[in-house]
Amino acid sequence: MKKYVIGVDFGTLSARAIVLRVSDKTVVSESVFEYRHGVMDKSLPSGVSLPDGFALQHPADYIEALRESVRGAIKKSEVSSSEIGGIGVDFTASTVLPIDKNGTPLAFDERFKNEPHAYVKLWKHHGAQKEADDFTKAAKDRGEKWLDSYGGIVSAEFMLPKILETARYSKDVYDNTYRFIEAGDWINLLLTGNETHAAAFAGYKAFWNEKNGYPTNEYFKSVDILLDGIVGTKISDRINPVSEKAGYINKYGSELTGLDIGTPVSLAMLDAHAAMPALNTTANGNMMIILGTSACHIINSDKEDVVDGIFGCVKNGVIPGKITYEAGQQCFGDAFDWFVSNCVPSSYSEEANEKGVGIHTLLTEKAQQLKIGESGIIALDWFNGNRSVLVNSRLSGMLVGVTIQTQPEEIYRALLEAAAFGAKRITDQFEAFGISIDKITAAGGIASKNALLMQIMADVLNKEIFVCNTTQAAALGSAVYASVAGGFYDDVIIASADLSPEVKAVYRPIEENVIKYKALYSEYLTLHDYFGKTNMVMERLRKIKQDC
Amino acid sequence: MKKYVIGVDFGTLSARAIVLRVSDKTVVSESVFEYRHGVMDKSLPSGVSLPDGFALQHPADYIEALRESVRGAIKKSEVSSSEIGGIGVDFTASTVLPIDKNGTPLAFDERFKNEPHAYVKLWKHHGAQKEADDFTKAAKDRGEKWLDSYGGIVSAEFMLPKILETARYSKDVYDNTYRFIEAGDWINLLLTGNETHAAAFAGYKAFWNEKNGYPTNEYFKSVDILLDGIVGTKISDRINPVSEKAGYINKYGSELTGLDIGTPVSLAMLDAHAAMPALNTTANGNMMIILGTSACHIINSDKEDVVDGIFGCVKNGVIPGKITYEAGQQCFGDAFDWFVSNCVPSSYSEEANEKGVGIHTLLTEKAQQLKIGESGIIALDWFNGNRSVLVNSRLSGMLVGVTIQTQPEEIYRALLEAAAFGAKRITDQFEAFGISIDKITAAGGIASKNALLMQIMADVLNKEIFVCNTTQAAALGSAVYASVAGGFYDDVIIASADLSPEVKAVYRPIEENVIKYKALYSEYLTLHDYFGKTNMVMERLRKIKQDC
Repeated sequence: MKKYVIGVDFGTLSARAIVLRVSDKTVVSESVFEYRHGVMDKSLPSGVSLPDGFALQHPADYIEALRESVRGAIKKSEVSSSEIGGIGVDFTASTVLPIDKNGTPLAFDERFKNEPHAYVKLWKHHGAQKEADDFTKAAKDRGEKWLDSYGGIVSAEFMLPKILETARYSKDVYDNTYRFIEAGDWINLLLTGNETHAAAFAGYKAFWNEKNGYPTNEYFKSVDILLDGIVGTKISDRINPVSEKAGYINKYGSELTGLDIGTPVSLAMLDAHAAMPALNTTANGNMMIILGTSACHIINSDKEDVVDGIFGCVKNGVIPGKITYEAGQQCFGDAFDWFVSNCVPSSYSEEANEKGVGIHTLLTEKAQQLKIGESGIIALDWFNGNRSVLVNSRLSGMLVGVTIQTQPEEIYRALLEAAAFGAKRITDQFEAFGISIDKITAAGGIASKNALLMQIMADVLNKEIFVCNTTQAAALGSAVYASVAGGFYDDVIIASADLSPEVKAVYRPIEENVIKYKALYSEYLTLHDYFGKTNMVMERLRKIKQDC
Repeated sequence: MKKYVIGVDFGTLSARAIVLRVSDKTVVSESVFEYRHGVMDKSLPSGVSLPDGFALQHPADYIEALRESVRGAIKKSEVSSSEIGGIGVDFTASTVLPIDKNGTPLAFDERFKNEPHAYVKLWKHHGAQKEADDFTKAAKDRGEKWLDSYGGIVSAEFMLPKILETARYSKDVYDNTYRFIEAGDWINLLLTGNETHAAAFAGYKAFWNEKNGYPTNEYFKSVDILLDGIVGTKISDRINPVSEKAGYINKYGSELTGLDIGTPVSLAMLDAHAAMPALNTTANGNMMIILGTSACHIINSDKEDVVDGIFGCVKNGVIPGKITYEAGQQCFGDAFDWFVSNCVPSSYSEEANEKGVGIHTLLTEKAQQLKIGESGIIALDWFNGNRSVLVNSRLSGMLVGVTIQTQPEEIYRALLEAAAFGAKRITDQFEAFGISIDKITAAGGIASKNALLMQIMADVLNKEIFVCNTTQAAALGSAVYASVAGGFYDDVIIASADLSPEVKAVYRPIEENVIKYKALYSEYLTLHDYFGKTNMVMERLRKIKQDC
């Protein structure tokens, strides 16, 4: 009898598989496998060096991680494959790769092993900013309506700029590509033999919408003649709504994962979206915030509106019948990790060692001692660019108020606060456009681990923040989708209500802190607009850097 | 027969004495002694904690450092005291202390041992910013002409704001003070028994000028009624021009230093000014830059003009008959030291240890590998406030362009470049006011030690920079003044030409670099004016911090 489902979450550095028992929503096992090549941002495995802003991955790593994580989780669970009634995967996006007619990545072809554009372009690959600007300009020139759904700007993290970059800089790869495909859809192609294209990927990352499909060929030609005829050839025009499934495990999929042939496979989801049913935030006004290396802010509504600078609003992409809005911060935990790796003196490392804690913990403890405003520092949280609401990957980080008395924990706290201010700028934007936020549910490793940050966020956002008892919301969400594909439930809203874990902690705004942060946030906003709109020094410095 | 003179330089952390043989300008010995209490910026020796921005010193440390450094240098030199024909001292300024009628510091009085205002307020004590603002406002309201000589703004580092701070916050200390005196003049009082007040201290740090003396009592009263009658009581109105000497070693001075009674003592000099005759930069158009924890830019002219934002222009303060202009950067080497102490990861410390070099050297080596603009970062060099040309101690440091790829050496290089940009803003200001700069001579530890920084400065300033073969320019300059006091020379210009050391290195602008830095400097200027004049967020953040 089928009792279990599997969810697999492909993140930036690793894949995580879980086995979920549907009857009592218990995660019985979990297995994580890191990508052998990680993020390739300096050079290819062959030694070819990469330009600034590149972030590639190796498709072979995904196959290995899929096999090892799923087999690992099944083995640990001691469940028989015959008891597993479905599998679902989620993936970062737009994480895109070129494949040939057989579904084989061009990166596997010896001819292309030294060609960066033959590899996977990871979501945070920023090589295509020029191309993104060209897409924006052409759309504005032609008054393309769909642009409004992307906040009025095409991001370099979208799929099509990445493809145009390949067309321009590697004709050979482009010409030999049968299809550019999202990595999530490609995994499902491996598992089932079916080429599906989930509406969420196409809708959030490739200008597609249910009503009008892709933009016209005239538009694509006006961006660059190289794109003439791209829809239906290099990119598929057959898009699958979230209510469909991807198919069933075939022979190759079975050999790879150990699952039985015929096991249902749900449509691939964007990693952040997958968390939505896991956290039971499918209702309107219930914002989900996923806090990881980057952050994602997702909320459902019945209102199909345009919110300036918000990344995407797509119907039937995440929850059948709902419009799902998505905003994001390109840099969240990344900034704290960067700081810990690059800016913490050896005396702190020694102190952490002596206390037997990690440096994040030590810095958080010290930062906790500081009063609000005591550091005297404000940061802009754009150390990896700004997604919402400025949609500009060429922005960068800024710190003001540093003195020769400044201690590391003061900068660390300023980084935490900046991350919260960045989130506040996003919730403000939603509310200004009439999408009210009644409740926030946070997930992701940082939400569980850093209580100081969560309290700062509650104070800055002036909203209650609920943290669920899961550190694997995306994988769990994929399992929820798998439960629907496997026929355990009729739809994902019911499955979500049934399978989401308990609330672990609630952070409530403290009035005194709310007032103090209001003053600091107002300074943040002024700097946000100055560096984001008035003085484009960050863009010029990146340009100078790239020209070096 | 008299063959030697002694120069003593009282710096921020230590005093350094040298013995100079006049006949062949050889420094025969040198002795450095660190102040026992260093800079007291957190608490007094008794444990009383100090507010943010305080920087005090203990007068007992100066007596000990004078005794030990002079006795140490004489001992090492193996010269007999009978062969020593003069001594001169220089001191940081405005470094001011309250003394009683016997010349005894109030800090020595048991009653005042817990009273911060009874101690020495070091030049970089920033507790009196409010008082400085009050002086500025009152001067502007009354249209006081002398204000123009100080760049139109009274700095918190000046003498009178520090005194008013004492009057306001410690009536007891103020009432019991016979005289507030510059530490340099106080040392000469110890040595000779004469109370002298060097024109340089009064002129550069206390609104005095040769023609009009101090501002009127009406002005002082308009700042605060507490200052009614201050001139001639709490501060002396008998000011000595640079052509005079302080007097001769008396019994106490002899017991302290081991010098013979009757040895001539030159007038105390500001530490930075003392370097001028040591580096033979007494001619017009020859700018001297002293690079230490802070930086000082000094140039002579015959033109008595007003240069906005330049700290002081005083006649007969440094070289008889000359007008000497002085500008400064409150933070120079301090920023690099702060970075090394607080922001360098343990992996760098380990690498430096393995290579057997200091962290500054390691970072400089790595920074040297970077191309101009490659870091993508611009900093504002105000980590300890801005002296010229903004004259605002409440400004702070800023970094823009930081990303999660940023390496420590990239920030380090940005700090070096920011220091050079800060200097460029100053030379630009001089030239805009018609004071041309034909040549730059740099001194101070950093000038000798960091060739990368000196090349960056040559490229940014687009001027040749000469570095003299001395790491003790101030002490040497004090010895030059001592040689005049001792009758070896008729005047300091001739003494300077005779006694200044050889040029050790010349850094010439590299055309390609000059062009690249022009673009970056233009970005710096925009940010300089934004954070210095338009958006006073740095001041507001300091205010919030102080209110915590």
